[in-house]
Amino acid sequence: MIDIQKEIDTRDIALKNVGIKDFKWPILVLDRENKNQRTIANIDASVGLCHNIKGTHMSRFVEIIKEIKEVSPKTIEEILENMMVKLDSKSAYMKIEFDYFIKKVSPVTEIEALSDIKCRYEASKEEQFKLLMGVTIPVITLCPCSKAISKFGAHNQRAIVDILVDMNSLVWIEEMVEIAEESASSPVYPLLKRKDEKHVTEQSYLKPRFVEDVVREVALRLERNKRIDWYSVKVESIESIHNHTAFAYTEKGYIL
Amino acid sequence: MIDIQKEIDTRDIALKNVGIKDFKWPILVLDRENKNQRTIANIDASVGLCHNIKGTHMSRFVEIIKEIKEVSPKTIEEILENMMVKLDSKSAYMKIEFDYFIKKVSPVTEIEALSDIKCRYEASKEEQFKLLMGVTIPVITLCPCSKAISKFGAHNQRAIVDILVDMNSLVWIEEMVEIAEESASSPVYPLLKRKDEKHVTEQSYLKPRFVEDVVREVALRLERNKRIDWYSVKVESIESIHNHTAFAYTEKGYIL
Amino acid sequence: MIDIQKEIDTRDIALKNVGIKDFKWPILVLDRENKNQRTIANIDASVGLCHNIKGTHMSRFVEIIKEIKEVSPKTIEEILENMMVKLDSKSAYMKIEFDYFIKKVSPVTEIEALSDIKCRYEASKEEQFKLLMGVTIPVITLCPCSKAISKFGAHNQRAIVDILVDMNSLVWIEEMVEIAEESASSPVYPLLKRKDEKHVTEQSYLKPRFVEDVVREVALRLERNKRIDWYSVKVESIESIHNHTAFAYTEKGYIL
Amino acid sequence: MIDIQKEIDTRDIALKNVGIKDFKWPILVLDRENKNQRTIANIDASVGLCHNIKGTHMSRFVEIIKEIKEVSPKTIEEILENMMVKLDSKSAYMKIEFDYFIKKVSPVTEIEALSDIKCRYEASKEEQFKLLMGVTIPVITLCPCSKAISKFGAHNQRAIVDILVDMNSLVWIEEMVEIAEESASSPVYPLLKRKDEKHVTEQSYLKPRFVEDVVREVALRLERNKRIDWYSVKVESIESIHNHTAFAYTEKGYIL
Repeated sequence: MIDIQKEIDTRDIALKNVGIKDFKWPILVLDRENKNQRTIANIDASVGLCHNIKGTHMSRFVEIIKEIKEVSPKTIEEILENMMVKLDSKSAYMKIEFDYFIKKVSPVTEIEALSDIKCRYEASKEEQFKLLMGVTIPVITLCPCSKAISKFGAHNQRAIVDILVDMNSLVWIEEMVEIAEESASSPVYPLLKRKDEKHVTEQSYLKPRFVEDVVREVALRLERNKRIDWYSVKVESIESIHNHTAFAYTEKGYIL
Repeated sequence: MIDIQKEIDTRDIALKNVGIKDFKWPILVLDRENKNQRTIANIDASVGLCHNIKGTHMSRFVEIIKEIKEVSPKTIEEILENMMVKLDSKSAYMKIEFDYFIKKVSPVTEIEALSDIKCRYEASKEEQFKLLMGVTIPVITLCPCSKAISKFGAHNQRAIVDILVDMNSLVWIEEMVEIAEESASSPVYPLLKRKDEKHVTEQSYLKPRFVEDVVREVALRLERNKRIDWYSVKVESIESIHNHTAFAYTEKGYIL
Repeated sequence: MIDIQKEIDTRDIALKNVGIKDFKWPILVLDRENKNQRTIANIDASVGLCHNIKGTHMSRFVEIIKEIKEVSPKTIEEILENMMVKLDSKSAYMKIEFDYFIKKVSPVTEIEALSDIKCRYEASKEEQFKLLMGVTIPVITLCPCSKAISKFGAHNQRAIVDILVDMNSLVWIEEMVEIAEESASSPVYPLLKRKDEKHVTEQSYLKPRFVEDVVREVALRLERNKRIDWYSVKVESIESIHNHTAFAYTEKGYIL
Repeated sequence: MIDIQKEIDTRDIALKNVGIKDFKWPILVLDRENKNQRTIANIDASVGLCHNIKGTHMSRFVEIIKEIKEVSPKTIEEILENMMVKLDSKSAYMKIEFDYFIKKVSPVTEIEALSDIKCRYEASKEEQFKLLMGVTIPVITLCPCSKAISKFGAHNQRAIVDILVDMNSLVWIEEMVEIAEESASSPVYPLLKRKDEKHVTEQSYLKPRFVEDVVREVALRLERNKRIDWYSVKVESIESIHNHTAFAYTEKGYIL
């Protein structure tokens, strides 16, 4: 049967990425407390395509993903190498997004419940293997300006902290969650009884934070972590007083 | 050229809807202040299909939508009638979603800016013409429980009020916005200077509202409006203390 | 500590639903082949609120969801009853959406891979328990008109079949997938080698189907199934020749 | 009234971006045929924040956006300069996304209708002004492999071409649409009568294209355009035979 994809292409244009996108697959990921956790991944996988080849063999990406058992910094490099071999390419890329559940304990009544955290790996292999881990954590921001100028109350809202790190040694998702929560006015919780709600309300009032503050507090903590070579931090605040979002962003290199 | 669609179908199954979905078209809508407003619609249009006809002629929906100038309760009925004729059907349906800008004035400094409101018409014509207008308004909810149990502060957040009405005479989008805003802890604004922010913060603290309260306050106001025959109200609150939403819903008939 | 929610409300408006929305939780669901399957649910849960009570206790929904082990028609009724007791209400509602993986075998080379199916339960309990199961299946539609009028080729595309059923006895997700796939021009597959792609291309060309046809073929099969008391079928086709979607819908009662 | 934002920050961390996101505003954009076109923008606007300042004044972004009349490469630079002055910053950024309608004529019956194209500007000003224009165009891809190996038919589907360009002189949105459509198996159309559908079906069968081909054909055309200094091209194909997407990407510098 004719193989159109492997024919010669004379247009002499190399492609940076050729592959599949939004492919869903059940996976295991590393879990600090329980060794691993079963979840569902949304996967983009691609390779570079040589200037003189017409096309790639898309089915091979699925054949490779089929064999994935556990997704971790170590196995991702192996998957990329496998792609480079099976698809005869000098570069491979992958983005793996997944939900990750962490245990949260309510601050006063100490009831446990799970909280859903969006995570992702962004990996590439050319000469070198490069891996970024992204973690997206919901928190509370209480506005310092609103508190300072008002006789009582202060507007507050859910905000989303997105941390992306390049690590030289394993960093747990749970560590990123802790950093984001310490840096904000308060963590959010899946389950709060009234005593807990009082605590969260008062604590966030006592700890007002602009999106600017949250980004800086996160950056300070990531800067100190020797296992992290590079990072970026973005915070988006679903402003309660507006119908739009406030945001701030910084990355490694912006600390004086 | 053969016309497969108009062939006889012997499976004897009528279809309630056959049509097109997510078709974008620029339209004019009624504007209380400026007579009309130009916007972009997302349109679903369909007709019923007789049990013995194989298919509908989808291109005719586009030919009809092409001729739309202004979308209003009156023109929507004409559009549906046009569909029934051109597509030879006894029923026609349409959903038209659009962004609508209203002028908002900041509460203290009185600076004007526009605020984006999501609106929709849901229309059907069989024996009778039926039209629902939907308006989705962002507001603030400040939690009465959090305020009552805490020494200071109270969690608050953006909430989304969705009102759907069956009207016997014209009701303006602006009226629905006013009802939603009166019913909540505070309106949201596109633009707030510090004096305005102080006002909004304090006012919302003085007027705590659960999602349950907002639904009831909106329902009370809609109930009193003689131009409204039926309504539903849904409020979703993007809880600042959780990663999930709180909501409440009621409709005509739930008032004792 | 004061309990604002349980105070008397004098506005005399009952609420049809009060609860939480978009709450994520890991669950087990029934699996025809492997007894059960681990997945992640997106949950909406609510109860009716009496006309004279100010608010509901939202944290109790999370306390109830926390205890869910396996989600099945049987356990969903127990969960709703639990909500009615713990939240002191005469009605309870729940929507549970989840990804479900089924094994697909490529049609010629017979290689296995998993395919992701979106499923949902929509349940309510007042006097009676009512449960609908929804299954959303991707398929291929090849246009009968395009084939009939063209010298060669025919436009085809991915289409999405959404089936919702009220069952008096267990119906498997897998059965709904089979019905949708038989009714379309062809199933879609996660993994196709060239021999398989040839098969799928030729088979879909030999079996052209409008969205109207797919809806009718699905309806015929659901009508014959004695375990199904009511159903609806919607098919949306991501038209390859347009930038909009074609769709058709019918439900129980439209067969002559 | 105290101004918390302008207080000194001693954490010594500069922020790359501080601003607002998802702010909706009605705008005019340039239109090749009609001089300009009214549409609705989704705007992100931010500035850099100095290491020793606590926060930015978010309301000023809205005050600046309020004054926007027409959005064009020229006015965007002025808006960014205005932000730098009013927010006292050495850098400013903006992303403006909008729907743009172009007239499409059906290929045989020559009926006109409008087609919705998603466009965006991504602009920054530090030492230099940098502006990218993005245009996202729906087209048809018909699979060359499927055609070559099958006795009849070939799978085809809607695909999305995303072109991003850095231009040294005005490039029209319409030009980008023409390039994408020439590069694919066929354009898509809002309105096709049967004669047109026959034409589109046959033409796309005669012109099979992988996503790889479409990317290369677009790149060749952009490379030749002297008004374009840099470009990227991404094509995503909503595969009719799968439940996932195939994609390819390249950018300036990959042509031998």
